[in-house]
Amino acid sequence: MSEECAKIAVIGLGNAGLPLAAVVADSGIMVIGVDINEERCRQINRGENPIPEEAGLEELIKQHGGKRLVATSHFEDARGCRTYIVIVPVFVDASNNPDFSIMEKALRSLGKILKKGDLVVLETTFPPGTTQGLVQNRLCESSGLLQNEFFLAYSPERIMTGVSLSRLREFPKVIGGRDEESGILAYQVYKKFICNLHLVSSAKVAEMIKVMEGCYRDVNIALANELFKICQDLGIDFFEARDNANHQFCHIHLPSTGVGGHCIPVYPWFLIKEMEKREHFSNCRLLSVSREVNDEMIRYWAERILLECMKINKPLFSIKICIKGITFRAGVKEFYHSRNLALARLLMEKGLDAYVYDPLLSEHDVQTKGLCYIEPDKADLLFDPFLLKFEYP
Amino acid sequence: MSEECAKIAVIGLGNAGLPLAAVVADSGIMVIGVDINEERCRQINRGENPIPEEAGLEELIKQHGGKRLVATSHFEDARGCRTYIVIVPVFVDASNNPDFSIMEKALRSLGKILKKGDLVVLETTFPPGTTQGLVQNRLCESSGLLQNEFFLAYSPERIMTGVSLSRLREFPKVIGGRDEESGILAYQVYKKFICNLHLVSSAKVAEMIKVMEGCYRDVNIALANELFKICQDLGIDFFEARDNANHQFCHIHLPSTGVGGHCIPVYPWFLIKEMEKREHFSNCRLLSVSREVNDEMIRYWAERILLECMKINKPLFSIKICIKGITFRAGVKEFYHSRNLALARLLMEKGLDAYVYDPLLSEHDVQTKGLCYIEPDKADLLFDPFLLKFEYP
Repeated sequence: MSEECAKIAVIGLGNAGLPLAAVVADSGIMVIGVDINEERCRQINRGENPIPEEAGLEELIKQHGGKRLVATSHFEDARGCRTYIVIVPVFVDASNNPDFSIMEKALRSLGKILKKGDLVVLETTFPPGTTQGLVQNRLCESSGLLQNEFFLAYSPERIMTGVSLSRLREFPKVIGGRDEESGILAYQVYKKFICNLHLVSSAKVAEMIKVMEGCYRDVNIALANELFKICQDLGIDFFEARDNANHQFCHIHLPSTGVGGHCIPVYPWFLIKEMEKREHFSNCRLLSVSREVNDEMIRYWAERILLECMKINKPLFSIKICIKGITFRAGVKEFYHSRNLALARLLMEKGLDAYVYDPLLSEHDVQTKGLCYIEPDKADLLFDPFLLKFEYP
Repeated sequence: MSEECAKIAVIGLGNAGLPLAAVVADSGIMVIGVDINEERCRQINRGENPIPEEAGLEELIKQHGGKRLVATSHFEDARGCRTYIVIVPVFVDASNNPDFSIMEKALRSLGKILKKGDLVVLETTFPPGTTQGLVQNRLCESSGLLQNEFFLAYSPERIMTGVSLSRLREFPKVIGGRDEESGILAYQVYKKFICNLHLVSSAKVAEMIKVMEGCYRDVNIALANELFKICQDLGIDFFEARDNANHQFCHIHLPSTGVGGHCIPVYPWFLIKEMEKREHFSNCRLLSVSREVNDEMIRYWAERILLECMKINKPLFSIKICIKGITFRAGVKEFYHSRNLALARLLMEKGLDAYVYDPLLSEHDVQTKGLCYIEPDKADLLFDPFLLKFEYP
């Protein structure tokens, strides 16, 4: 294989794509990274890491950015590659149906530079069947190739912002082809930069694997939340009970204000909506109820906050309540489906004197979200949604 | 402590009580075992093990039965003991409310021999609050003692028939007192025969720990069943997906015909019914749906069996369908809430030509359950409910 042929393109340099691109480059392979964000591309090419919270990424970007990892906003620049890894987001829309708009745009652009014999590997989490269905169709349409004229596989990202590099280097990663040949080829290519790699029988199985993991997490967080509420009712310390209930066969999760972010609260919908489309409603009852239990946790916490106000010798309307943190996860400045942000808004909707403080956000940041900023020591009651603790300054 | 004082009584010599009694005896302590089943008592005193499927129990009963472990059906014989361990069953009734009738009978009998300063430890799994509530009340009523005149604690059994001895010897065991003094005393007594022992803050917490574990299992089996059905719909091999989805943070369980036995399908009801009593229905939605998903699995399998009949070149009414195993678990001759038994009955109700074969049961055993016996090779279609596999003899 010539130097040119050995190049790999990574389409999408977000929180999932950039760590992958860096790991591929670090294995000695030339990487062309494609992202619509021109400023991010320039940053990477200057050797600057745009995801500071990602452990170890800074060194890799410093070492390879602009050299073995070249970022560009033009698909044309990736034309020489023979392997294209696509890792752009698929969200859900307001009705919780998958929103493929960003993905479809990327596939149409990719199709224009796709050649006979190229390999395309998808990494984005989406509903089982998408690789062989929507992805293949869009690529055929935009490239003019027949489906057997290019190879197609799926290998779900299993990263988690903050530990993505160790996930890529140590964690088991699965890969499956649209057909046997695609699977074997994709496995051989990925084996060059992923140690713990497992070939499964099809792209669809690989798609299901990732979605199932998300469902396991969502259902088990819902279970923790339900048991937490029951313990509260019964006057039992949930955390003491959980510490002693968990052992090698029991893995009760932690309670929360619900589940936010691009992953766990999204993936169950991929199955629920597919079952609803098939009018097979009884097949997704547990997944649906888990989503509801988690999303309704903000109502539980709103009531707990109200009851907590009994400890303060002031009229309820004048108690300054502060939600201490509105990102969806502590330490990560992201708000997608953030239940903490939703909790702050819910308190405002109820007419309470509600404020927000977040160590990651400026007063202006908070105001642009339509919320009121407060310094923690100016509030009467603080609720920390990550520790689930109340404080009285 | 005199020889007499050091004696421990174990009330209930069933599948949970007898292994415990044997382990206590094996630690060097004299045990009086009380059970209403006179034949079982005679057997134990002859050194014969009534639970052959329990690994290692035979040696212990042979060694200690009738010597350091004396079984009796008379509570009076246990009068000399200072510690009473109660491990008799609590089931649920037809409305899924806890049925304490056996427990209450045992407590009334125990009360008659209870003295000032005695310690009572409950091991039966029941709703949080039962030790301090119903148990204490019944003991006070029947003994005439005030509640502070005897010690009371709770330590849930975590055995599983077949591996009970290793569970008792290695697995973490929790214990909690009605009050601090009871907890410490019970911990000291149990420490003589349980190595991996953990004192928790109250009997109620210890009660919740055990119920929570059961809920974790039930919900996760329901999740496995739901994902299994979705995979079937989508044409995905669930087992391949599960094998690759599971890792240190993901523990997807195995699908089944539902959950049977005295434990897992019972414990969630302890919380569900308590929440319903408090009119707090939204607090147990996930637990309730999980029970329903698991109990309805027999309807899913009935349909799968019907569709499987398409492979047989005979009119449907004449196809001999055999359920190969009707115990609730493979290798254990117990039928409590057996979903396999329920599945066989469901097929009969639907008017199909349904039969049963079970290696643990005689033709007569099967008939007494109102079912028809068949030799496996005489059937047209066999369904193994433990392996979830179809066979065609």
